[in-house]
Amino acid sequence: MALIKKPVTGMKDILPAEMQLRDYVIGVIKDTYGKFGFTSIETPAVESLANLNSKQGGENEKLIFKIMKRGEKLNLETAKEENDLTDSGLRYDLTVPLVRFYANHQNELPAPFKALQMGYVWRADRPQKGRYRQFMQCDIDILGEPSNLAEIELILATTTTLGKLGFKGFQIRINERRILKAMAAYSGFPEESYDSVFITLDKMDKIGIDGVREELEKDGFDKAGIDKYLDLFKGVQDKGAVEGLKFIAETLGEFLDEEVKNSLEEIITSVDATKSADFEIVFDPTLVRGMSYYTGTIFEIAMPQYGGSCGGGGRYDKMVGKFTGQDTPACGFSIGFERIIMIMMDEGFKIPGEDNKVAYLIEKGVQGEKLSNIIAKAQEERAAGKQVLVARMNKNKKFQKEQLVAQGYKDFNEFYKNPLN
Amino acid sequence: MALIKKPVTGMKDILPAEMQLRDYVIGVIKDTYGKFGFTSIETPAVESLANLNSKQGGENEKLIFKIMKRGEKLNLETAKEENDLTDSGLRYDLTVPLVRFYANHQNELPAPFKALQMGYVWRADRPQKGRYRQFMQCDIDILGEPSNLAEIELILATTTTLGKLGFKGFQIRINERRILKAMAAYSGFPEESYDSVFITLDKMDKIGIDGVREELEKDGFDKAGIDKYLDLFKGVQDKGAVEGLKFIAETLGEFLDEEVKNSLEEIITSVDATKSADFEIVFDPTLVRGMSYYTGTIFEIAMPQYGGSCGGGGRYDKMVGKFTGQDTPACGFSIGFERIIMIMMDEGFKIPGEDNKVAYLIEKGVQGEKLSNIIAKAQEERAAGKQVLVARMNKNKKFQKEQLVAQGYKDFNEFYKNPLN
Repeated sequence: MALIKKPVTGMKDILPAEMQLRDYVIGVIKDTYGKFGFTSIETPAVESLANLNSKQGGENEKLIFKIMKRGEKLNLETAKEENDLTDSGLRYDLTVPLVRFYANHQNELPAPFKALQMGYVWRADRPQKGRYRQFMQCDIDILGEPSNLAEIELILATTTTLGKLGFKGFQIRINERRILKAMAAYSGFPEESYDSVFITLDKMDKIGIDGVREELEKDGFDKAGIDKYLDLFKGVQDKGAVEGLKFIAETLGEFLDEEVKNSLEEIITSVDATKSADFEIVFDPTLVRGMSYYTGTIFEIAMPQYGGSCGGGGRYDKMVGKFTGQDTPACGFSIGFERIIMIMMDEGFKIPGEDNKVAYLIEKGVQGEKLSNIIAKAQEERAAGKQVLVARMNKNKKFQKEQLVAQGYKDFNEFYKNPLN
Repeated sequence: MALIKKPVTGMKDILPAEMQLRDYVIGVIKDTYGKFGFTSIETPAVESLANLNSKQGGENEKLIFKIMKRGEKLNLETAKEENDLTDSGLRYDLTVPLVRFYANHQNELPAPFKALQMGYVWRADRPQKGRYRQFMQCDIDILGEPSNLAEIELILATTTTLGKLGFKGFQIRINERRILKAMAAYSGFPEESYDSVFITLDKMDKIGIDGVREELEKDGFDKAGIDKYLDLFKGVQDKGAVEGLKFIAETLGEFLDEEVKNSLEEIITSVDATKSADFEIVFDPTLVRGMSYYTGTIFEIAMPQYGGSCGGGGRYDKMVGKFTGQDTPACGFSIGFERIIMIMMDEGFKIPGEDNKVAYLIEKGVQGEKLSNIIAKAQEERAAGKQVLVARMNKNKKFQKEQLVAQGYKDFNEFYKNPLN
């Protein structure tokens, strides 16, 4: 029977060249985050549907790959709805599993707990170019740290990692959910319409300030309020991060708790003073971040030269309490792993230390002790740190060597049955 | 709503200590196999049920976690059987996906193709101590190499890796499906009963030669044949690998192709002459290996001190052809990753280079420039290779430090708001 050669719809095979880059990037990430005291953890790919559907996942909850019950539990005849057939599914992010993990193991973990998670997630999204239904997420989270030290460490760790991967000239954009709300309150928008206002504000990058005005007007908001609102964003243009923040805080006056401004200012100045990569931290009052679970700081990696966001995160102080019944401060940062890989592939990134490869090609008739001697030599070179491929010589040796050159082999060692030939 | 804290049945969370070991082992495996010219690849966790149920997976095909169709494709009302609801599932091994991968990408891959796969697989096995429904497999395979150079390289790469992980005094047991068959033929067993005979033979380790005799007699085999059969195994006892093989070959005479014996002998002598780890290669005519797809050499890692097999593999020259229509020689070796991890945890394995950890504990009131200066110092130490945890001092500093000591932090640096306190 001929079998199906393609991967299932929307998922992909990873070939050696990309895999080599992925392994390298994973190594740099684990090493760098390790230096910041983050420890790796893992959770299963499968989670109970009760947890996955807990409303923390937003739109992603519609994209779950559900796993069928098995054996006696699966009764097709009496099944009336989907939930009679399934009670678990593939995770769509690493945040819900992290919070479950923390609830389950809190007593075995240090406080604060600094977690690194790298793992696949699955979403039944409409397949499109460069977006797959299985993809890797790379999250760091600090649980149990209420102060802005969490934000500072998350941003430094992430930017140091990006720097080690060769990225420069990027931005970390930062904002605060409470500033977002204060700006909306100051402009007189009714509280129940905040979410709708933020969805419009989030489009600033694409449609500009006039587009935002148009959309808000279309939604029927008061013109004076819209003017007041948009003047805030005009006011920060061409201001540095701290000056922009100060301008917003002064304008908002009593609408904004001074502590919020002070803490955000401290994050910006501390990161600026201690950063070890070439990037800029920018206060961006138009930054929204979609997930409803954020409660405080929010931030995003912006790489305009590569068309937008390469990751982000923020503070979510209320989510752990939903699992444990006890509020625990939490803050996380996620690198857009697949995006980073795509950019590095496009830019032709060269992995360091890839120049130690040698191929031994052995003619078919070489056997016995002679073969052993060749292999012994390869073993010696390997022990000394070389990468040694040992292979039989193909009939078409020229093509074989071309293939090996394409894989980065430059040195060749050829062994014949009769060396005089 | 309180949510479910435990992982789904039969799967587990991985805590920092185990995860650190796993990351270390994965690093050693990737690095060592890399030196042998194996390149990493990955396939999706999800495969089509048509492929998973292709009879290559044996008993594992009964253990598939099946994924429900979605949207319009899922029609509960017209569904009559399971297959109306599902057409994909989680992979139960890495061999079926590898063969699909190779069929899909053959033209983009070098010949021979040396693949390393490390990835999770899922089996709905009855949960038991130390066995989980999600576990990592670690396979190397060489596709397109008909000669025994494949076996030699696979065994050397795997044993070198085990040696680097600190394992010694273990055995590689090796046998040949064609020797198994020749022994059965020589003893006069009818061909249709070979599988049953091999299932009994496979129990030799547990029930001994008398147990095997008893079971074969109970199955109604001819007593003279059983005597002839068991004399073969008695004959190799106390013989070295090569002598044992020679004894079997001489006894079997024309029942065994001399090429089979010569090739196996060459594997044994070459591995013995070039190995770089402390192990023994043993010819074991009782070795069976369950999977029906093996066509030639079969081998197993035996660590009797840890109760048995820690991996194995063999040659499967007919499987790729079932996907591609064109026979391709193939040979693979799988390390029992989860077993290796369990043994290393039990033995209290110490990860090298874990003595560079320092914790900065910062009193709550330390803010602003002072905080920046402390973080700047941490950044310096990190750049110099240290692992520096920066955390706020907890109210119970003593407990916090105990937790950190348990994580391997020995050096502490404490920072107070007022250093005179």
